Amino acid sequence: MAENLKTFPVQWGDTDAAAIVFYPNYYRWFDVGTHDLFRSVGYSVSQMLDDGFAVPLVEAQAQFRFPLKYDDEVTLLSRVVEIRVRTFRVEHTVSRGEDVCCEGYEERIWVRILPNGQIRAEPIPDEVRGLISTD
Amino acid sequence: MAENLKTFPVQWGDTDAAAIVFYPNYYRWFDVGTHDLFRSVGYSVSQMLDDGFAVPLVEAQAQFRFPLKYDDEVTLLSRVVEIRVRTFRVEHTVSRGEDVCCEGYEERIWVRILPNGQIRAEPIPDEVRGLISTD
Amino acid sequence: MAENLKTFPVQWGDTDAAAIVFYPNYYRWFDVGTHDLFRSVGYSVSQMLDDGFAVPLVEAQAQFRFPLKYDDEVTLLSRVVEIRVRTFRVEHTVSRGEDVCCEGYEERIWVRILPNGQIRAEPIPDEVRGLISTD
Amino acid sequence: MAENLKTFPVQWGDTDAAAIVFYPNYYRWFDVGTHDLFRSVGYSVSQMLDDGFAVPLVEAQAQFRFPLKYDDEVTLLSRVVEIRVRTFRVEHTVSRGEDVCCEGYEERIWVRILPNGQIRAEPIPDEVRGLISTD
Repeated sequence: MAENLKTFPVQWGDTDAAAIVFYPNYYRWFDVGTHDLFRSVGYSVSQMLDDGFAVPLVEAQAQFRFPLKYDDEVTLLSRVVEIRVRTFRVEHTVSRGEDVCCEGYEERIWVRILPNGQIRAEPIPDEVRGLISTD
Repeated sequence: MAENLKTFPVQWGDTDAAAIVFYPNYYRWFDVGTHDLFRSVGYSVSQMLDDGFAVPLVEAQAQFRFPLKYDDEVTLLSRVVEIRVRTFRVEHTVSRGEDVCCEGYEERIWVRILPNGQIRAEPIPDEVRGLISTD
Repeated sequence: MAENLKTFPVQWGDTDAAAIVFYPNYYRWFDVGTHDLFRSVGYSVSQMLDDGFAVPLVEAQAQFRFPLKYDDEVTLLSRVVEIRVRTFRVEHTVSRGEDVCCEGYEERIWVRILPNGQIRAEPIPDEVRGLISTD
Repeated sequence: MAENLKTFPVQWGDTDAAAIVFYPNYYRWFDVGTHDLFRSVGYSVSQMLDDGFAVPLVEAQAQFRFPLKYDDEVTLLSRVVEIRVRTFRVEHTVSRGEDVCCEGYEERIWVRILPNGQIRAEPIPDEVRGLISTD
């Protein structure tokens, strides 16, 4: 399945008064990871939106093993792990060096954006399925 | 168990280019809900920190049923649903009017903040247990 | 001129590793203050957008006198202080008790949203001018 | 004077319902720019904090010429432009391609972090002055 690896330092603005990363920011990273993953397989979310589609969230989860601090060098591995008819799952692993500090997933759904701005779930097109299911 | 109800409008800064709430912000709301819940039972997180304790995240999850838009009036119900030796779970329900648009939970752990800034899990003290387990 | 007063506690997620409010969040508050101000005079930004107009930023500035901490009770006073042909200025004062900790302003411009999504500056309509210039 | 150049795409979470970057995020970028600038001259903010010093904000300002959208490739140039006894100014220029879309500055002050957590302004040490004033 498609995957994307990304490395970045914890920014000052990611932290809270406990001097660790404020937990909602892990999901911001997950979101970036998924966007980067689509870009890396040659179908950016910009292109997707231009084509009239989107992949909003159905569910997201994360487990936190140890906290990250300012300036920690973070590795984010984002991998498509399951593709169903309309939905797919991206697994995200956040590490500092060899140590996994956070693991989670996003469950997203393929939707068409209707002229009135509403969205309607549709089967993931074969071409998209092909792009995100390749190794 | 202790619970807290909070009502607020979706802020402009909570939205993204799809004109819906950017999903990590739901977890920001969950965090606010838990902080408000502790304040409402008479033991604010400020007091907790002064006492040398904290309740960092172990896990968080959310399911998204339909998106929220700018200015939507949101109701957030946060309820303690389970208390174990060291950890407890807060369930969060986000509604617009009668409709639940997001359900999730936070799993948090009771820790002592050590002089060196490290944290150590400890059993939840009886007084705290009493405060968050009362109806 | 129109003004709006708002009181709220500093949220945990507003803070950074120095245990004070991360400064970009003051601008988030300014933005909320301006949106609330429009709502208070009877012309919400939701309505404005439905009418095909918006008030994007031209400039924003803030001076910081002393830092705010988690749970500090904050008062935000937002006042229209100048209205020109196309632009207007909202002054924001952030206080803790009697003490002003931050003062700043937003300079915003009245724009029409064109069918292609582009924007075009236009004179502020008299009705809007009337609403935000009243005491 | 010291300067730092950084290039990054606008992230989905940086945008708002107008499909442009929510303006407080420009200040988040400014903050990152200043932190990167200190790192680039060999004195990271992590090191500064370990040494018991910090550089909190006194003032920040930004002018916005045209909006940025999701996935726009952004260039951020951060330059020290003035160093006084206790304070210094970092100018930030945000561009897309050749076009400057936002210009602003941060005014920061050199402070010692006291044992009680309070801060006290002090003259910028010569070594630090040397590092950020070199070309």
